[in-house]
Amino acid sequence: MKALIPYKKKNAKSRLSPVLTQQEREFFVELMLRDVLLSLRNAQIEDIDILTTPHNGIPDDAGGNVLISKHDLNEAINEYLSCENDPIFIIMADLPMVRPHHIKEIVSRPEDIVIVPGKGGGTNILFIKDPSRFHVKYYGSSFLSHCNIARENDCSLYIYDSFVLSTDIDEPHDLIEIMLHGYGNSKKYVMEKFYMETGRQRARINASGDA
Amino acid sequence: MKALIPYKKKNAKSRLSPVLTQQEREFFVELMLRDVLLSLRNAQIEDIDILTTPHNGIPDDAGGNVLISKHDLNEAINEYLSCENDPIFIIMADLPMVRPHHIKEIVSRPEDIVIVPGKGGGTNILFIKDPSRFHVKYYGSSFLSHCNIARENDCSLYIYDSFVLSTDIDEPHDLIEIMLHGYGNSKKYVMEKFYMETGRQRARINASGDA
Repeated sequence: MKALIPYKKKNAKSRLSPVLTQQEREFFVELMLRDVLLSLRNAQIEDIDILTTPHNGIPDDAGGNVLISKHDLNEAINEYLSCENDPIFIIMADLPMVRPHHIKEIVSRPEDIVIVPGKGGGTNILFIKDPSRFHVKYYGSSFLSHCNIARENDCSLYIYDSFVLSTDIDEPHDLIEIMLHGYGNSKKYVMEKFYMETGRQRARINASGDA
Repeated sequence: MKALIPYKKKNAKSRLSPVLTQQEREFFVELMLRDVLLSLRNAQIEDIDILTTPHNGIPDDAGGNVLISKHDLNEAINEYLSCENDPIFIIMADLPMVRPHHIKEIVSRPEDIVIVPGKGGGTNILFIKDPSRFHVKYYGSSFLSHCNIARENDCSLYIYDSFVLSTDIDEPHDLIEIMLHGYGNSKKYVMEKFYMETGRQRARINASGDA
């Protein structure tokens, strides 16, 4: 089994720009990547490929094989899948709340395909037993696309239902979830940088005095 | 065991007003209530109390005992808990994606308290084994409050992690999740009323031509 992490650092997470500068966002995505890598290793997944585009520096000590592709995400991943025979665990780099037990549960499922849906129809994790029988179609309502692709290829399918894994970190209010349910480097960073504002409504983040 | 559903119909779900009129919202919250009631009954929970305020008409055929309180939500629930000895399953009426298997899993947990977190620090479901050892504190970051109350009362605690149960229906983008992951009356209503707009970003809803 292999894990594949698509990763982009340069000007990443632009929707977080109301609360983090470009430099801070680039630093933060690297922290999230490190949290994902650590959980994969703690789930005994050692063979990890990080897929990125040119000039999206992966830190030298991150571990994992760095694959550089100039192609669009779907094209790059489908090219990758076409060269693989073993099961592939594709996880987005902005899921710092993933824990080893999630990964172990997902890869233990008997189905051909496991999809972990993200908010708004996204696909946050895809576990593909036989890469020759599947291709990816990210963007838009990729959750529905991936369900359809599984069906078209006669693959059995399991939808893994997790709040913390549905929470990819895209917008300021997602940072609240890291404060409440997160771990590791990303939680430490968010806790240092922001505080939680609560009233009668949902909690919101705010920059802390020293941010 | 008993279930308790806090419910409010009158001018409910004001944050959905950009896409639904007051009359539509009041109709929709009743549909969601019916979906929650059906899942509870299908999970073999028959003793159901619906807690509401005066003039928040519960449909006659909803089933369940109607409890009317003029008090604030926390006060009303804590008064209720103080009169109960058996386990209580408190579920919000805006969780139409709850399924019988969720309910069975939650009430089978061995811990004293089970919390199902909602987005932004909310509490969407609370399962309380011994009501004399717990009190509620909804609003704001109630998830943290309920974790603390469990700790203060030496109650063991389980956090039930579910994307669909984290999704209380408050804002227009929450309706997308009903389209993608929902069931029953509420899904039917949302599918008739809206269509999904997809592009490269997260899916969004839009009023359908005939809405």
